[in-house]
This record gives sequence, C-alpha cells and structure tokens, in this order.
Amino acid sequence: MTAEKFSVADATVGGTVEFGPECGGVVAPRGFRASGITAGIKASGKPDMALVVNDGPKKTAAAVFTRNRVVAAPVTVTRDHIEDGSITAVLLNSGNANACNGRPGVEDALRSCESLSDELGVPVTDIAVCSTGLIGDRLPMDTILGGIEPLVGGLSGDNVAGRAAATAIMTTDLVDKQAVRRADGFTVGAMGKGVGMISPSMATMLGVLTTDADITPEMAHAALAAASEKTFNRLDIDGSTSTNDTVLLLASGASGYVPTQEELDAAVLAVCDSIAAQMQGDAEGVTKRVAITVTGTGGEDDALVAARIIGRDNLFKCAMFGSDPNWGRVLAAVGVAPVAMDPEHITVSFNGHVVCRDTGGTPDARDVDLSGSDIHVEVDLGTGDGGSATVRTTDLSHDYVHINSAYST
Amino acid sequence: MTAEKFSVADATVGGTVEFGPECGGVVAPRGFRASGITAGIKASGKPDMALVVNDGPKKTAAAVFTRNRVVAAPVTVTRDHIEDGSITAVLLNSGNANACNGRPGVEDALRSCESLSDELGVPVTDIAVCSTGLIGDRLPMDTILGGIEPLVGGLSGDNVAGRAAATAIMTTDLVDKQAVRRADGFTVGAMGKGVGMISPSMATMLGVLTTDADITPEMAHAALAAASEKTFNRLDIDGSTSTNDTVLLLASGASGYVPTQEELDAAVLAVCDSIAAQMQGDAEGVTKRVAITVTGTGGEDDALVAARIIGRDNLFKCAMFGSDPNWGRVLAAVGVAPVAMDPEHITVSFNGHVVCRDTGGTPDARDVDLSGSDIHVEVDLGTGDGGSATVRTTDLSHDYVHINSAYST
Repeated sequence: MTAEKFSVADATVGGTVEFGPECGGVVAPRGFRASGITAGIKASGKPDMALVVNDGPKKTAAAVFTRNRVVAAPVTVTRDHIEDGSITAVLLNSGNANACNGRPGVEDALRSCESLSDELGVPVTDIAVCSTGLIGDRLPMDTILGGIEPLVGGLSGDNVAGRAAATAIMTTDLVDKQAVRRADGFTVGAMGKGVGMISPSMATMLGVLTTDADITPEMAHAALAAASEKTFNRLDIDGSTSTNDTVLLLASGASGYVPTQEELDAAVLAVCDSIAAQMQGDAEGVTKRVAITVTGTGGEDDALVAARIIGRDNLFKCAMFGSDPNWGRVLAAVGVAPVAMDPEHITVSFNGHVVCRDTGGTPDARDVDLSGSDIHVEVDLGTGDGGSATVRTTDLSHDYVHINSAYST
Repeated sequence: MTAEKFSVADATVGGTVEFGPECGGVVAPRGFRASGITAGIKASGKPDMALVVNDGPKKTAAAVFTRNRVVAAPVTVTRDHIEDGSITAVLLNSGNANACNGRPGVEDALRSCESLSDELGVPVTDIAVCSTGLIGDRLPMDTILGGIEPLVGGLSGDNVAGRAAATAIMTTDLVDKQAVRRADGFTVGAMGKGVGMISPSMATMLGVLTTDADITPEMAHAALAAASEKTFNRLDIDGSTSTNDTVLLLASGASGYVPTQEELDAAVLAVCDSIAAQMQGDAEGVTKRVAITVTGTGGEDDALVAARIIGRDNLFKCAMFGSDPNWGRVLAAVGVAPVAMDPEHITVSFNGHVVCRDTGGTPDARDVDLSGSDIHVEVDLGTGDGGSATVRTTDLSHDYVHINSAYST
C-alpha cells in the first residue's frame, strides 16, 4: 500500500484561510518580498535556498524555537539576533540542517548572515537564518555564499515568489505549504515545511509568518506562542522533537492598521492551524489523518497529555493504518497516562460511533468502517471534569518505515 | 524485507543459564508439574491453555504486575489471590486477554479458578490466572472449562510438559521461551511469552518462574521485583504497556535448601535476563537486537530515562532497520530527555566505534557497518557523573507495521 497524499487541507479554526500554491503565502501581506532558488546543496537538484525580506516600515519580529536541548547552529544564531524584537530578512536552506557541527557550525551560520547583510545593506543582527536537512554535515559554504546574490536579485512581491520560497524549504515534503488570512485591516501570510513533525534527522519544522499589521514585538510573540501551542505543538506525527524547529513572525506595519491582541491572535492562529493541517496531510507515509480528542480528565493540560500518549502509540497508529477499530489499543495506551481517569468508566468513539462504553466494547464495535482518510477518535476518561484537547497525528505505515530507514545512507 | 528471528538468545548476566525447547523450564526445579493443550480458543488450532502446579511442600508465591491503570480481569483476580503469599497452581490461556470486559470478565476469571479448584482439590484463592490475546472479547467459557480436565490429566514433570506449557501461552511469538538456572543447592526455572513488549492489544507479557528453594514470600517478592526491574522493565519493544502483564514466581521448597537473598536474587535475575533476551530476539518484526547504554548523566535513574527515550524513538528505530549509522537521530532523541546532560559534549558510539564526539560527527562516522544482527549504542551525556543503564529494544521494520495493522480484523 502506498501513501496517498492529501492535496487539500482545511483550516479548522479562525474562519476562512486561503491556501494552495497560488495564495501568495509570505508575500500576501504588504511590505514583503521573497525568493527561492536552486543553489546546489541538494544532490537532487531541487530548490534549496529561500529568502524572505521585510521592507517595512516596521521590522518587528518574534519567534518560537524547538524545546530540544540539542539545538542547531541556526537556532543559536537566530535566537541571538531576534532578542531585540527586530528582524529584516530570513535566510533559509534545505538539504542540510547545520546541526551538531559545534562552534564551526555557528561560524558558518554567521558567515551566511554576514554575506546577506552586505548584499542587503542591513545590520547582520537583523538577519535570521534557518536550516533543515541532514544532521551532522557541515554546510557547503561556497554553495551557500554563491546563492546569496541570486536570491537577493530574485526578490519579488509576486505570488510566484512566495511559492518559490515555500518550495525551496521542502525536504521530504511532497507539496509546498502556504496560508493567508485576510482580516479586517491587515493580512497574515505564512509558509511552512515539515512532514515528520517533528522528525529529528530531518531537522524538520520551519515556518515563516508575515503580516502587514502594525504591532509590537510583545504582541507578535504573544500571538505566535499562543497559536503555536494550539497548532504546531498539537501536531505529533512521530513524537520526535527536531533540533532545528523554528517559527518566525515578521511584521511590516505596511497596512498602517493596529489590531487588538485578540484580532492578531485570531488571524495568526488561523494561518498556523492551516499550515499544521497541511503538514499533517503531507506527513511521512501518511494514509490517514487522525485527530484525537480527550475529555473527562483533570482539565485541558491533562487532556493534552493523554491525547498525545494515544497519538504516539505505535500499536494504535498501526491499527489506524489497517483501518482497524481496535479500541483496546486506545485503552491500553491511555491507561499509562499520568492523568486523572476513572479506569472503569472510559468511553471511546471512532468517527462519532461509540465503540467502548464503561471500559467495555459495544456490541457492534468491530463493525465501524474506518476505511476513509480521516479518523476522529474521542476518548472520555470518565471523571466528569471539564476541559478537552485535540492532537493531530497520522497512521504508522510501511511508507513511514521505508522513508525513515534509508535517509542518511 | 522479512524479519529474521533469532533462534538463540544468551543470558548476559548471572552466569550460565540453560535455555531452548528441551531445558525443562518451569518443571526443572523439584516439586513442579505442567501441561499444555489445544482447547480451541484460537481459530488457528494452536495450543492455547497451560497449567503449572506447585506440589510443595511449600506453596510460596510472589508476583509483579503491569503498571497500566486499565488492568485485565485475570490481573485483578490474581492480585487478590496472591495477597497471602501462597499460590498452588497457575492457569494460563492465550488467544483472549479477558481485558476490558468489566465485572463479567472478572466473573469469568473466577469461574475458571473455581473449576480448577474443584479439579485439583485446592482452595480457589490458591489459584492464579493469566490471559493473553485480544482485548475486549469475552472468554469462551465452555471452551475454557472444557480444557480444565485434560489440562489436569496431562500434568507431568517431564521436560516435554514444560515445553507444552510454554508453547500454549504463545500468541504472535514464533518460539517458546524457557530458561533454567541450576544454582548451588537449588534451581530456578521459567517460561515467558511476549513479542511486542509491551504491546497492549496483545495483552502481552506473561512469565512464570518456579524454584525448589525454601524461601519466604518476602524473599520471593524481593528477588522477583529486583530482577524484573533490571530485565523485563528494561526491554522496550514499542513503548506500549500491556493491560495483562504478569510475572509469577512459585517456590516449592522441595530442595530443602534455604538460599541467602543474594543467592536467590542472582539465580532469579539470570533466568529473567534470559527470558527477556529471548523476548527481544522474537519481538514482532525484529531484524536487529539493539542495546542502548547511557552514561554520564545524573545516575542510573536518569540513564534509564534517557536510554528508554532513545529506544522508543521511531526515527532511530527505522534507522536501525536500515543499518543506517544516523547518529543525529540519537542526539535529537536524547536532547528531549529530562535528565542531566552537557548538550555540547555528548559522545555516541555504535558497536564500540565512536561516531559522535562533543556533539559533532567523527570523520568516518557514516562508514560504520551496522549490517549485523546486534547493535550496541553507547551514549555518554558528558556530565562526568557516574551510573549507567541499558535498555534493550529492536528496530522498527515493515513486518512490525504489517503484524500490527491487521491484528483484530
């Protein structure tokens, strides 16, 4: 069985979001240009360098990074450069993660920033850098430095340029991932990549959001952190946390519109949710999009822990691949979750069909048809308490094993 | 690629252990008889009921159980019956886990005990019961009760009977698993099953140890708990914890020998280690036996947490399947472990060959040959502190996905 990729992903929160190759992505908001080229980092000859530039008037920026304690050089550099809340340009490459290269890796990342700084005429500390690809190989610096001039030369505000940037950050992604939310008075655009959220050897999830709203770094950070928590941090393809994960939000202020925090939060959440859904639909080896909602435990945090434990259970994920309504695996997985539950009164449903009530199977439990592409698993842990959380995951398929058993060699 | 099973597993601690189909297993110590039959629980017609009886003079017993909060009916019943430190007979079945069947499941387990109690003429509270197989289906009670008389009639102290019992508890196991340690003055025997340690829908790991040593329940429990912690609890095939896991130790005192706690501990550890190694070698879809040793963190407990996190990482496990020395995945996995580490000074070796030093690759890291069946991964987290722990796992193969995507349907 081969993995069928999902070509369309819908945003599930926050109203209408435009997506797809023609939507513009990071260049949809006023004040942004982008470009993407084939510099030659990848042996495949596919595009591998991208650039996003904020033409202002404001250069506000915020970021969220991987929680992994082993972090890649570009994360170290970008963390440092974004500390003052201002970034003018983001330089991205795929094909090499520049992770686990020690001090020389940091120096390579800084040299890339310096070269772009010279070319754009902006301070080096206003450059962010992101890398994605194999861990442990030094960046091919001649290739990277040779790519700077054509990248800057190719900068454009056309939708084609947005797509070129989104395409150049792909690794094992099969489709580019973009989203645009047009709110009253301002726009938020985004591009992202990542198909093993978060698959470490891929050094995997990168995202760049842009907006023409006039906001402070504090507003940007609050919106991005809240949205990431609800979207990217609840997408769990394989339980593995990358060394390189970075999501940036750049704000140009070019709309002149000053949104409330609530307006900004809603728009940022909407595009993050769309990008997360697109990542789920393009996940490594995916044949099923699985959403797991947990209720009836000690509040939202407990529900999230329990949903994540189910979503990471290989036996559950294999059952989803087999369209197998094996609710026993849901119970066995959630039974080890360190959260409040009534072990005698757990309810499980697949796509709205109750398959387990009071921790026992319903008579027709094994007749549920899970042959479709989307499976919603709902688990009520029976304590009667409120709060719920949903985690998105995928099945565990032959293609996932195939893709990940032959990556570096 | 099909999974090659490992036909021979060596004990790695505690001196010489006999194993293999002819070793006697649970009937090797004096005072024990066993039997195994095909009752008809499994559609395949394979053996599915087993019995182990302690003929004394002592009927000492101890047990360790699953930590899952969703526990199967036989666990509930056996926990109750073993509370006084005495068990005469263990009734086991494969093909049905009797898990998640609520109160009726407990009543089914009790009826099985009562039937055996009548047949053997011993109190019902001296009977332990273990089930393994699919979760959520009621036991076929006519078949179970019909199996009691032939099981009792077939009881024997011959090695053939030990093997018959070990065979009748298999599910997706391909080989029976037995071990015997002949210590000075006493003997410890064992049988076990489990190939997705701990794969919940299989309701998976069962073990019965027997000894002719003259020991107290407290000695038995101390030895079993310590040995389980070092062996079964450090075997982690897929991170999933069964609802049925049970390991029992029965002591007949028939040797008349009273060992010290240390002598008992060593012998029990040796057979548990052998059974654990046999389970690893027969794990679902296994093509590689992988041992992960972590040092240089905050002591043994931290080392165990870190080793387990690496051993559960699907990307790492896929790399092992591909014989891929992708040390970046080891670093990315261990980087999220909540333990002491120096992120700039991590060392990784595969089969004694250093592939990563100071969190960076060595020049010949990608040339290491991992095509053999056994891979030892050593990770030094760089804090300079003592303590180490080793976890056994396997690779993640196509066969694992295949076996587990079509189990209940």
